[in-house]
Amino acid sequence: MTTSVDTLIHAGWIIPIEPENTVLREHSLAIRDGLIVDILPTKAAQSTYRAAAEHRLTQHVLCPGFVNAHTHAAMNLLRGIADDLPLMAWLQNHIWPAEGKWVNEEFVYDGTRLAIAEMLRSGTTCVNDMYFFPDAAARAYKESGIRASIGLVIIDFPTAWARNAQEYIDKGLALRDHYRSHPLITTALAPHAPYTVSDEPLKRIRVLADELDMPIHMHVHETADELDQSLQHHALHPLERLQRLGLLSPRFLAVHMTQLTAHEIKLVADTGTHVLHCPESNMKLASGICPVPALLDAGVNVALGTDGASSNNDLDMFGEMRSATLLAKVALRDATAVPAHRVLRMATLNGAKALWLDQWIGSLVPGKSADLIAINLNRIETQPVYHPISQLVYAASRDQVTDVWVHGKQLMNDRRLLTLDEQSILSKTQEWRQRIGGQ
Amino acid sequence: MTTSVDTLIHAGWIIPIEPENTVLREHSLAIRDGLIVDILPTKAAQSTYRAAAEHRLTQHVLCPGFVNAHTHAAMNLLRGIADDLPLMAWLQNHIWPAEGKWVNEEFVYDGTRLAIAEMLRSGTTCVNDMYFFPDAAARAYKESGIRASIGLVIIDFPTAWARNAQEYIDKGLALRDHYRSHPLITTALAPHAPYTVSDEPLKRIRVLADELDMPIHMHVHETADELDQSLQHHALHPLERLQRLGLLSPRFLAVHMTQLTAHEIKLVADTGTHVLHCPESNMKLASGICPVPALLDAGVNVALGTDGASSNNDLDMFGEMRSATLLAKVALRDATAVPAHRVLRMATLNGAKALWLDQWIGSLVPGKSADLIAINLNRIETQPVYHPISQLVYAASRDQVTDVWVHGKQLMNDRRLLTLDEQSILSKTQEWRQRIGGQ
Repeated sequence: MTTSVDTLIHAGWIIPIEPENTVLREHSLAIRDGLIVDILPTKAAQSTYRAAAEHRLTQHVLCPGFVNAHTHAAMNLLRGIADDLPLMAWLQNHIWPAEGKWVNEEFVYDGTRLAIAEMLRSGTTCVNDMYFFPDAAARAYKESGIRASIGLVIIDFPTAWARNAQEYIDKGLALRDHYRSHPLITTALAPHAPYTVSDEPLKRIRVLADELDMPIHMHVHETADELDQSLQHHALHPLERLQRLGLLSPRFLAVHMTQLTAHEIKLVADTGTHVLHCPESNMKLASGICPVPALLDAGVNVALGTDGASSNNDLDMFGEMRSATLLAKVALRDATAVPAHRVLRMATLNGAKALWLDQWIGSLVPGKSADLIAINLNRIETQPVYHPISQLVYAASRDQVTDVWVHGKQLMNDRRLLTLDEQSILSKTQEWRQRIGGQ
Repeated sequence: MTTSVDTLIHAGWIIPIEPENTVLREHSLAIRDGLIVDILPTKAAQSTYRAAAEHRLTQHVLCPGFVNAHTHAAMNLLRGIADDLPLMAWLQNHIWPAEGKWVNEEFVYDGTRLAIAEMLRSGTTCVNDMYFFPDAAARAYKESGIRASIGLVIIDFPTAWARNAQEYIDKGLALRDHYRSHPLITTALAPHAPYTVSDEPLKRIRVLADELDMPIHMHVHETADELDQSLQHHALHPLERLQRLGLLSPRFLAVHMTQLTAHEIKLVADTGTHVLHCPESNMKLASGICPVPALLDAGVNVALGTDGASSNNDLDMFGEMRSATLLAKVALRDATAVPAHRVLRMATLNGAKALWLDQWIGSLVPGKSADLIAINLNRIETQPVYHPISQLVYAASRDQVTDVWVHGKQLMNDRRLLTLDEQSILSKTQEWRQRIGGQ
């Protein structure tokens, strides 16, 4: 007697993330109603289950999809418009003027679709986004079938999306209500940064987060400059100011965190604050180095994000994993820092934890949602295979991702996107390129 | 009247490297007898030349092939066998024992073929190699049609290749004589490192280099540990010892150089010594950070290399360019350090200069050899295109290389290797994986 399931995937290797640093050789994974129902040796699977869809991926690793814990998806349309500049010159002279001129609902919808295509093609199945017109982004996410946490952006100054902090909050909460029961879309309060949001809206955000049980997603301690400014205006480091405002807690997701004293690391650990590490953005903008090993040692949950494509310039979690471990090693002069299996966990389970989704995603465990990816290791670039986790982190590239599922639904099959039309996305992108102009 | 050429390539963009930071839109490149004969607007090209082979690569960038200025190609067979370890533990407990057991002529031939396939697939057209059994490596290079500088390795201790420094030198020189008139293969004297080669052979190497007009390729100042040891044994930093032995000169190619005082930077500049920078290897082994901006400012020629696949763990010059610029920026806290066009030059022309091949390769200039690559930018990951150089360095990946030519001969066409059989290389690699065993 065999049991009926929806999908059965036979993989060369399964890396479940839990338990950490585990590789299962020639195992299979069974999916029913969007959930993982079993993981077992392929031989046993064949006599236990019959499936509507069966996939033989014997040269492939099957692992949880990546959780890109911080990005600004729509900024994909500004990829490479300005490089080799420090944060404030880049923002003030290039990004903010371009955004002021071009960002509207259509820009965000089209840019988010370009970003989703890039993320699915590189194995990301869940993204934590923060940008203007989150309603347009949410529509793009919903149509694509990817899982997303939509940041309800809040900033003191007026943009095309809202006129003041109150309007940002009101529009955000309306969006939250609209998506409250969507199975794949969640929302987070997203005050932009300590230097762009004043105390009053931050207090309101804290109350709302408590009342509505929502995460707070915010850039914090990105540059030394930010700390200097805060000392001038508030006579406090931003983190201390946020602590006094009552924001630091397991609800709080602090992005970047490149400047941290030992005391502040303890504060982050004690309050259960999550850290979203974006190593390539921090390197490219010369912002600084987040002390990841010290944070992990203190028990802080550290997840990984790409940041937006205009500061990275891609949404590739393979690159981000590699940069995270290489940067940690050289910064500490310790080659054992953040080993491969640890950074793979940061890119999956730790991201799920930060978004409060680890009950559902981030590892391959029966009962969790079937959000998973297959990576073909039978390539010149990833042979021979001594340790599959080493190959994923130190040798594989995004184009080796062949198949992607979110909640059991296949979104990419042998590199073909099933819910998005690549050609129409490329055409739309080229239209925007013509419109935005420049060199 | 049209002029006859062998090959005419119509490209969306040509990046010639000389002049620096130049992009030619809709230009074409004509090849005859292996050499570039003209670069001109596509419209003019169509009325000027007729070609036996014509390529329309209108969505592509055409640029010089990468020069991988430092690798140990055959070590591809040990890719990922041991990670997350510091240099000496990694060498002494893993790499040297595995090499002692497995390295022979067959290993080097098969491993080098795997490496060549990886390099061609990622746009490298010239490589500076250093490994045992250089005769087997040279055979693999010759058959593939790639351009190579073969390091004639010299080390104090016995290996399967030679018993002592004298035998290493003798065997190396025999190999040099064998390939003296080969159009694509050159040789370099390759003493392994200051801590593995004693003064007597180094003196002999210096004399030979002068007499035979050969470059010297050597690991130098890779780790702080190397400096400490040298102070103990010689009461000198390795660089100073090499200077006293007369080795530092425009013939000398110093790999790694992560530990340098201001005085040593000046010494390197004054002697015309080249620096071969391997950022990912230095990060992964936590060796340190080569002060690239200071070296460039001092007028030193700095080229880029991947190092061997067992310490990197790939031979991908796209990744190496990105890591080089990102690391320089964050190390100096200067986002303007090593801009995109500079690192692209390091990966091409500076490598050619280090190998004394810049008369022939490293930039697209009429009269130089047609060693070039095409990269397709019409992908989700590299759209929109505001600045093609930014896309190459900050967003493109190795799989976007579609076509490769060396000395006018096409070695890859639309991702299909023309001189190597990928399937047989994969099979051989898997045979070695079985033999070497392990987890």
